[in-house]
Amino acid sequence: MEKPYVIGIDIGGTNTVFGIVDARGTILYSCSIKTGKHADVNDYVGELAQGLERIIEQAGGHGKIKGIGVGAPNGNYFTGCIEFAPNLPWKGTIPLAQLISEKLNGIPVTLTNDANAAAIGEMTYGAARGMRDFIMITLGTGVGSGIVIGGNLVYGHDGFAGELGHVITRRHNGRMCGCGREGCLEAYASATGVARTAREYLEIRTDESILRNLNPDEITSKDVYDAAMKNDKLAIEIFNATGSMLGEAFADFVAFSSPEAIILFGGLAKAGDLIMKPVKESLDKNVLKVFAGKTKLLFSQLKESDAAVLGASALGWETKDF
Amino acid sequence: MEKPYVIGIDIGGTNTVFGIVDARGTILYSCSIKTGKHADVNDYVGELAQGLERIIEQAGGHGKIKGIGVGAPNGNYFTGCIEFAPNLPWKGTIPLAQLISEKLNGIPVTLTNDANAAAIGEMTYGAARGMRDFIMITLGTGVGSGIVIGGNLVYGHDGFAGELGHVITRRHNGRMCGCGREGCLEAYASATGVARTAREYLEIRTDESILRNLNPDEITSKDVYDAAMKNDKLAIEIFNATGSMLGEAFADFVAFSSPEAIILFGGLAKAGDLIMKPVKESLDKNVLKVFAGKTKLLFSQLKESDAAVLGASALGWETKDF
Repeated sequence: MEKPYVIGIDIGGTNTVFGIVDARGTILYSCSIKTGKHADVNDYVGELAQGLERIIEQAGGHGKIKGIGVGAPNGNYFTGCIEFAPNLPWKGTIPLAQLISEKLNGIPVTLTNDANAAAIGEMTYGAARGMRDFIMITLGTGVGSGIVIGGNLVYGHDGFAGELGHVITRRHNGRMCGCGREGCLEAYASATGVARTAREYLEIRTDESILRNLNPDEITSKDVYDAAMKNDKLAIEIFNATGSMLGEAFADFVAFSSPEAIILFGGLAKAGDLIMKPVKESLDKNVLKVFAGKTKLLFSQLKESDAAVLGASALGWETKDF
Repeated sequence: MEKPYVIGIDIGGTNTVFGIVDARGTILYSCSIKTGKHADVNDYVGELAQGLERIIEQAGGHGKIKGIGVGAPNGNYFTGCIEFAPNLPWKGTIPLAQLISEKLNGIPVTLTNDANAAAIGEMTYGAARGMRDFIMITLGTGVGSGIVIGGNLVYGHDGFAGELGHVITRRHNGRMCGCGREGCLEAYASATGVARTAREYLEIRTDESILRNLNPDEITSKDVYDAAMKNDKLAIEIFNATGSMLGEAFADFVAFSSPEAIILFGGLAKAGDLIMKPVKESLDKNVLKVFAGKTKLLFSQLKESDAAVLGASALGWETKDF
């Protein structure tokens, strides 16, 4: 194989992590820089390119690199631009794929958002190998999604499809969501959503719970997990309620694209059976009969620390020019 | 062009209509038989084949026919089978595509459900020509859908994707749906759903309405339409409420696949602005900001009497062998 490696770049609000990856999904060399350090995106790309050149040299030079994939908030696959990302220092539309490619003698660069990158990563190296229809759900600070249909990522006509964290799951008296609307799945089934549920339960209910020993304003989903692992009834109920809402939403997703699997990834997915069991019960209860028992519920098979870079790198195998 | 025609077969609970169609979407010859006449599917296929042979002869013989497309309830594109269709006389799994093809000297036959056929028809001859991402919503006795992503119909891993009439639009105190669950879009936004809304409004409200002159049990969506066209306030509100629920659901569909257009078809779509205006207002109000104003709302451009046969026939251009 003449070009045996790809590069994955994961751009987060705090850090940008990048690495060289082989066809099996092994990260050979990796490195990171601070995303927020440069107010000018050209300075940022300059530092990034320096770091990239270093690991490219370690890997044997430009001739070994098939392509670069970038996962970034609000990344648009069609244009290669980051568009109005609230948590990044650069405003407006940033032609990032082009800027990076230019700095690296034209190595092709493809860009998409983080959840799409995770889905492609799972399809290339993880639990979705060989699948042509699946949905990746990332349960982190927010709820993201990457949808694969017929072996292709769904980008929609504008490049922004797959915002399943923002389907409305409670139409009346729904929680305020960061997107400005009410009742979004993300407001309940994210890590922050679980913490909100904990605060709500502690306020309206009177039963005992380990969680009452904590300052309500500082409770995290990790605290709820820890309490549930100690058999705290209230904490277990919080996971049951969260899983139940996810299962309801998944039943609608199945009615849409009838995927072979829905794959969970991210912080909340680490709760394992605590979240998966109620998700499965709720999906079984809510799904349309024709789909009953057909959709597998799986956890990501990518190690969380590597997944973002792996996901982005997987795009490198299918790079295109800008 | 050696094989200039395709055949479309639309199988309904009462009638089976079929016709020969050219590349522009003109139905050249057509015919129909009673679906329910034959308890044995082989007898049915026998009569159907006789009718098909007649119109094939009119069109110049087998050599002119590129393929046959069939739209049928519970039709599975992958297997060519009708699977457990409640409104057809044949039980279990019927390999209809194969049965028809065998009777016609191996002309390739492709089968899918009615709503998918309508979507392909719209893409081939109608309002979705040139579009790669759109959703077809059929508002008839029920609510059906055909989803096109990247130029391809979405079948899902089992062939049954696109059941958007059965996303849950009211999670609490939802109406009983024919599928056995509660709160489905179809229970509200179908022709029968509109009639149910009329009965509910007449019962709980006290304001004047032309609809009060009718026997509530016999009110149809057409009655509500006629009343609304006479400026009946209650009837107009029924359309507003129906359109509003459709718009809410569409906002979720847009978050899923970000289509260029959502196309309305079927009986209720004939209400025109009466239904489209509240749909549009509700979609604008409910859609995630990143998609605001991006999705066109359109009516089907296929004449309703022809649409089912045209839709099925469009499949004939992309036939495969079984």
